[in-house]
Order: sequence, then C-alpha cells, then structure tokens
Amino acid sequence: MAERITPRSEDYSRWYTDVVLQARLADYSPVKGCMVIRPNGYAIWEKIQQVLDKKFKETGHVNAYFPLFIPESFMKKEAEHVEGFAPECAVVTHGGGEELEEPLYVRPTSETIIWSMYKKWIMSYRDLPILINQWANVVRWEMRTRLFLRTTEFLWQEGHTAHATEEEAEEEARRILEIYRSFAEDYMAMPVITGQKTENEKFAGAVRTYSIEAMMQDKKALQAGTSHYLGENFARAFDVKFQDKDGQVKYVHATSWGVSTRLIGALIMTHGDDQGLIIPPRIAPTQLVIVPIWQESTRTKVLEFSERVYRQLKEKFDVKLDDRDQYKPGYKFTEWEIQGIPIRVEIGPRDVDANQVVLVRRDTREKIPVGLDRLMEEAEKLLDTIQKSLFERALKMRKENTFRVDDYREFQDVLEKGAFLESHWCGNTECELKIKEETKATIRNIPFDREEETGKCIYCGQPSTGRVVFARAY
Amino acid sequence: MAERITPRSEDYSRWYTDVVLQARLADYSPVKGCMVIRPNGYAIWEKIQQVLDKKFKETGHVNAYFPLFIPESFMKKEAEHVEGFAPECAVVTHGGGEELEEPLYVRPTSETIIWSMYKKWIMSYRDLPILINQWANVVRWEMRTRLFLRTTEFLWQEGHTAHATEEEAEEEARRILEIYRSFAEDYMAMPVITGQKTENEKFAGAVRTYSIEAMMQDKKALQAGTSHYLGENFARAFDVKFQDKDGQVKYVHATSWGVSTRLIGALIMTHGDDQGLIIPPRIAPTQLVIVPIWQESTRTKVLEFSERVYRQLKEKFDVKLDDRDQYKPGYKFTEWEIQGIPIRVEIGPRDVDANQVVLVRRDTREKIPVGLDRLMEEAEKLLDTIQKSLFERALKMRKENTFRVDDYREFQDVLEKGAFLESHWCGNTECELKIKEETKATIRNIPFDREEETGKCIYCGQPSTGRVVFARAY
Repeated sequence: MAERITPRSEDYSRWYTDVVLQARLADYSPVKGCMVIRPNGYAIWEKIQQVLDKKFKETGHVNAYFPLFIPESFMKKEAEHVEGFAPECAVVTHGGGEELEEPLYVRPTSETIIWSMYKKWIMSYRDLPILINQWANVVRWEMRTRLFLRTTEFLWQEGHTAHATEEEAEEEARRILEIYRSFAEDYMAMPVITGQKTENEKFAGAVRTYSIEAMMQDKKALQAGTSHYLGENFARAFDVKFQDKDGQVKYVHATSWGVSTRLIGALIMTHGDDQGLIIPPRIAPTQLVIVPIWQESTRTKVLEFSERVYRQLKEKFDVKLDDRDQYKPGYKFTEWEIQGIPIRVEIGPRDVDANQVVLVRRDTREKIPVGLDRLMEEAEKLLDTIQKSLFERALKMRKENTFRVDDYREFQDVLEKGAFLESHWCGNTECELKIKEETKATIRNIPFDREEETGKCIYCGQPSTGRVVFARAY
Repeated sequence: MAERITPRSEDYSRWYTDVVLQARLADYSPVKGCMVIRPNGYAIWEKIQQVLDKKFKETGHVNAYFPLFIPESFMKKEAEHVEGFAPECAVVTHGGGEELEEPLYVRPTSETIIWSMYKKWIMSYRDLPILINQWANVVRWEMRTRLFLRTTEFLWQEGHTAHATEEEAEEEARRILEIYRSFAEDYMAMPVITGQKTENEKFAGAVRTYSIEAMMQDKKALQAGTSHYLGENFARAFDVKFQDKDGQVKYVHATSWGVSTRLIGALIMTHGDDQGLIIPPRIAPTQLVIVPIWQESTRTKVLEFSERVYRQLKEKFDVKLDDRDQYKPGYKFTEWEIQGIPIRVEIGPRDVDANQVVLVRRDTREKIPVGLDRLMEEAEKLLDTIQKSLFERALKMRKENTFRVDDYREFQDVLEKGAFLESHWCGNTECELKIKEETKATIRNIPFDREEETGKCIYCGQPSTGRVVFARAY
C-alpha cells in the first residue's frame, strides 16, 4: 500500500500494472502467462456476471457447461477455425499416467465441441432456436501477456446459438451486441463504438463479426466484446441439419459471442487516475465505504454513530464500514482510493454532533456534508451523478481524440499522438494490411452509424463509400 | 421423451442414467469421461451455487480465481498430495506449438498453486485469516465414469483458508462442514451423517478430513462434501510463515473444503422415482409449472386465466407457464414429471368457471383444488410440505436400512441387501482394508454424534470405543 503508483504521464503501462497490483485486483502467478484474480478483482467480475447473466436470461438464454477438452480432430473440422486457433492452443497429451491416443486441446473457444453436441440435439425446427450461454475458463497461449488484457488463461462467457434462418441468427448476433453496448455504456460508463469487423479482423470461422470498441486513456483502442454470425460454417463442419416446417432438410445457422475478464482491464484504463482505480457505481462491489475518524476520547461516540449510518446505508447500497483499529484514517483513505470505491463516507466527532456525514467523491474528491435525514437520497443522487459524470468524461476524451483525416501523412502524424482516426478505406485487405504494417493501426470496426459519404481510400486513393475507425489497439 | 425410464426395481443403475438423459440434465460428450451439463442440470447447479455462495459470504469468505495449470514441480512439493493426485492428472506438454520445458498439470484440486500464492501474500498475523473460495472446473482422469457421479472433468467450489492457529483452522473446517450439512438437509432434503474420515480415507495431504455421507435409494453411500484440516502440511511445503503478535515466526495452518456437481447425482438418487426426477422445492429452478388444458372453443378463456395465475405466482415463486401449442397436456404432464418440477398447476375450462386451479404434487401425485383467493398461501404451504416430506421419506429410508451389527457373518449378509452398518472397529487400517477387500464396504466416517460404547472390532475382535458407519459407496 505504501508503494507509489507511477503517474500516468510518466509511464501509462507501468501505471496500469501498479494499479492492478496495488488495488489487489490480480497478481502474477508462477504459471507462465497465467494470472491470479484476487478477491477485489473477482468481485468486479461477479458484478459483471450478475448484470450480463440477467440480461441474457431476460432474452431467453439458458446456461450450460461443455467439456474443457476438445479432441484434435474436432478442431480441424472447420478450416478457418483451426488455422486461427490451433497455433495458440495448450495440448494435453497424457492422462491418467498414459499417453493419449488422440491429443486433447484445452478449449480456446467452444464452437467445435458445442456443435458436435448440437448435432445430437437438433432434428427438427421444433428443436430451434437453441440459446445457450456458458461461463467458463479458456486458454490461448500468449507470449507477451498483460494482467487482464492478455493472459494465457482467462474467464469469459461464450454464447452459442442455433437458428432456423440466417435472418434470425443475424438478429440474435445484433441483439447481443446491443446488450454488450448497453452494458459497457450504462454499467461500466464506458462509451463504445458498435460496428462490423473487416474480413481480415473477423473471428476465425465467422461470416460476420460485430464488435464494441472503446478508447482507453492512452488513446489506444480496446475491443471489449464481439458477436459473430457464423452462417452455416459449423453446421456444415459437424453436419447439423434440421427438418424445417416445409419438410425440407436444411443446415442450421449459428451465432457465437463473448466478453471476458479483459473488461476489468478496460474499466481500469477508462476511469483510473494517478491515485488508483475508479469503479463506476453501478458495477462497484462496494459503492460506499465508511471511515470513522476518532481519538480515544471520541471513539465510542463516533463508532456508534458510524454503525448506525452503516445499518441505514446497507438497506439500499453495497457499503462497507472500515472500523479497523490498527490503521489510521489517512491510511484507510489512501487504500480505498486505490481500490476505487466511488464514495467515501467520513464521520468525525463534529459530524456526530451535527448529525451529519461527509461524502467524498472518488472521481472529483469533492467533499459534501450531508445531514443524516437526507443521507439516503443524497447518496443515491451522488452515485448517479458519478456514474453519469464518468461516462461523460470518457466520451469527451474520445471525442477530443477522434479525428477525420483524409491525408495519409497527417494520418501517421495524428496517430503518433494517440487517436481514433475516421478515414476512408477502399475495402481491400491489402490496404488494411499495409496500413497496419506501416503504422501499427488496425481498422477497429466499420461503425453501424457511419454517414454515407463518398471519398478516397486513405492509402490507395480508390473510391470508398464511408469512413472506418482506425487506431492502435490492445 | 417417449422413451421408457427403466424402473428402479429392474436396474437401479440404468434407471439413474435414464433419468439423467431423459430429464435432459446431462449428456455424454465425445470426450472420453467428460459430460455435458445441459441447461436443466446446470440450472440446478446454479441454485446450489447461489445458496452456498451466500452462506460462504455470510461467514466472511470471498471468491477468487487461480490458474487452471499447475507446474509439475509444485504438485511434487507435498509428498502425500502428489502420491494421491498425480496418477489421475491430465498433463499439458505442448503450448503455442512448442513442447513445454516443464509439463503443466490440469488442476485436480488447487492446494499447491494457491499456497504458492499465499507465500507471497502472508507476512504477518495482520494478513490472516485468508478466507478464499473458488468456483472452478477440475480434472481427475477416470476410467469408469458415471454422469455427475464420476467424470473426468467436473465443476466444484474449493475453499482454501489460512489461519494463525490450529484451533482457528479446526473451527473453520467444522464451520464449513456444518454449512454443508445444513445445505444438504435443509435445501436438498437429503439427510446426511457428519463425521471424520479414517486415516485411510482422508484427503491426500490432510491431517483430518470431515465428510457428510448420504444414503442413496439403493442403500449405497455417497460422500456429498468434505472439509479438511490440513495442518501445516502445505505451509511447510511452500514455506509459508508469518510473524505472530508475539513476534515469533510460525507456520500457517490451512483448511480446504469442497462440494461438486456430484451433488446433482445425489439429488437424483435420493428423491427420484420411476417417473423421473423429483427436485426439492427449495433447490428447484422451477417450483411450479402451469399446464393449461383447453379445446379450441375454450382456448382463449383458459389461456387468459392461466396467464393471470402465472403473473400472480411469479410475484413469489419460480414458475413456468407451458402454453406450447404443439404438445398435448398429457405429453406435458409426463415431460414435467420427468424433470421433477415439485408442483404442476392444472387449469381446465371448469377450473376457470370455478375460479380455481388444481395443484398436483410431484412426489405423491395428490391433486388439490385451490380457489384463486387462497392460491399464494396454499402454494407456499404445499412447497413447504413437499420439502419436509421428501426429507422425512429419505430419513425414514436411511433409518430402516441402518443396522447395528456385531457379527462379521451377519455384516456380510446384511450388506448384500444394501445397508449402512454401525459396527465396532479397532482403529487399524489393516482391518479396514481387509473388510473393504472382502466386502467392498468402506468406513464412510466416524460420526460426530456416535455414542461412547465399548465393543469389539467386527473384524479382529480387538477393543473398540465406538461404532463407525460401513457401507458400499459411490
């Protein structure tokens, strides 16, 4: 706790790691590329799970669980899929003391194992749609890892749905992307750009991939969630057909979609400051923390009052009372600031006398004295205000760092300072790859809400029908 | 659905598998030894998680997540532990296309990886206790597998706590066993015997293991949860010491404890009947299912009334309305019976006229007409009654099949019919192993509440101070 957090201006990357470690969100493990998610980090993941799980269930999805292991032969059934994932898989070759006949891949994603089951479960249109989600761990071998952002093992949810028609599946993929958008914006207070990935950037095995993209404080992009229309690709690979109402036998249409513990990295890099983490109230496992300030002579009075306040707040909010004896208030302030609790409730002897508390905003550090009679409504209002204000601040940052650029030289210059660039692109993978090679910028997505506008590709000058978003990305 | 469930009297083992498959709780996967937990089964697991997670948090525990992979060298640090677990591990030898320098074991349990982290986190008595739980998948290679009961991969929770003293750790291990007991009895309606495992049956690496043991309908025992006092074993293996209040440096004391998806198997075999599953109301994802019975002329009237009943019940209960057009009521009855929904709510045109519904108990099939004005209280009362009655029935079964036996010949005869046997045992592993070899019965545990009673070991005739519980077990 006494350690210093590197200021963002000095080294953004070190700042990030300092916050993760000092807020005790995660820690390095002795297993290369794998992290430990500590209780503070896991509690945020539990909040993310609660909110998303509810939204999935409200839209008719159910949870299930499929095996961790995938036979090698299954991975190979969808050509693009194996090409994309096999090189980054962990492979089990021995089990129960013996060498296996067929190696087992630790799932990097579960399309293949799940579609091998859908083959058993789908006969008729009556069996459709299947709307299954899974909360699970997955493994993708990584050479260069960063806590939460890129680790060999991570936690995620993966939805895998089966539909009678392309139209229905497409609708599902879009519905989920909208759930991801509203979750990111309304809960995580993180503005995102929704759109379609390019051919080159889409999921290995998908027909179309949609994504939400957020700008981090260093102006790099972070892909925060993806939703795929998989067409008949996996149905064909695993021979999953159904008899339709019209008596005809057809291939099933698929979607898959996921968000992961990476979201916690996004949260840190969207809202954190040089004092540590800032958690938006709607996703905060602890929304308020009460820190009593006493001396020996005022101890009983302050603690009794604090407990009363605690019991009151607990009725409606997620609240903690930090009545630890062995630490001074100043130490506690710092600790809870690092951990990003949205509101600190200070209670000293004079506050007890005045029948009030002092609310301290984590984001602005503003201090607001509030009488006990108005505490509940003021706390609620303030949490709302913080939630909105975090979103507005992040949106403003993104707007101020997003530029329409039509000249490749300027593109390179602006990119150097960090930015989202809205530029024209001809639609060819060749230009996309050249730009990536020369600038490290990728097309984040083709925004759904882009204006129709004719222009010239920023790279080759060929005609374009609209702008796409370029950025360097995590 | 049209398939027949093998009656229990014909073949208990086939009955079990039939129920699992036809209630769509789980399915065989193409990966040897691994199962798919289907939505109906996973929903039960989610209920189990909800209840236990709440109990863990109320007693001060927090959740975290540790890596799936454990370096081979870590497994080897605790001698008994590696001997017990290494032979049943799945081993990753390749990652990212290359052979690994050190093989990684897929966790069969996480003591070693977790204690390697506790080494980093524990310095002083101020860092204790650590009360961490993890919800995770684990892998133990199995040759002969059975859905839910014994599979290569399964889901579980594993608690891992660190304490300053043996006394505290012992108290924790017992506290958790009591949580398991009350969960099994009060939620799953499954009576259990709490007690201590013998030296031979304890967890590999534990000083003492406690368990809850239940009797299944075929009179075999099922170990439904275990809690271990691990002493300083893992602290010594990973060199985890702390500076105590008195200034001295001491080893940390540990516990670990877990229950798994095996509980779903226990639930099926405690309550199911020849019609399928019976889920105790307090753990049922769906407590009531409304089945409207209409003909074309009464369709609107019955459906409107049913929706009203649905909205009313939904205020307080987990309820489903089965208004599917393509299936007849009789088909629906069977389907929901197989799935074990505690109460079916039948609504026909005459019920609408009488402003009533008919509640049908899944366990006794009793039909109870209830006026709409008394529906909420009657439904609640009936759910309570079913919950209690399931527990009583299971307890009666156990009592009727538990025998005090002092003669080894009689022991063998009684065991043949299936039973729990309360017999004297001298305390020597040798006798325990001989009995196991000759009868396949193991000592389930040494019950906490056994009477003090001197006697002679059922096998060797040496003095004994009390009875232990013998049974054949899953």
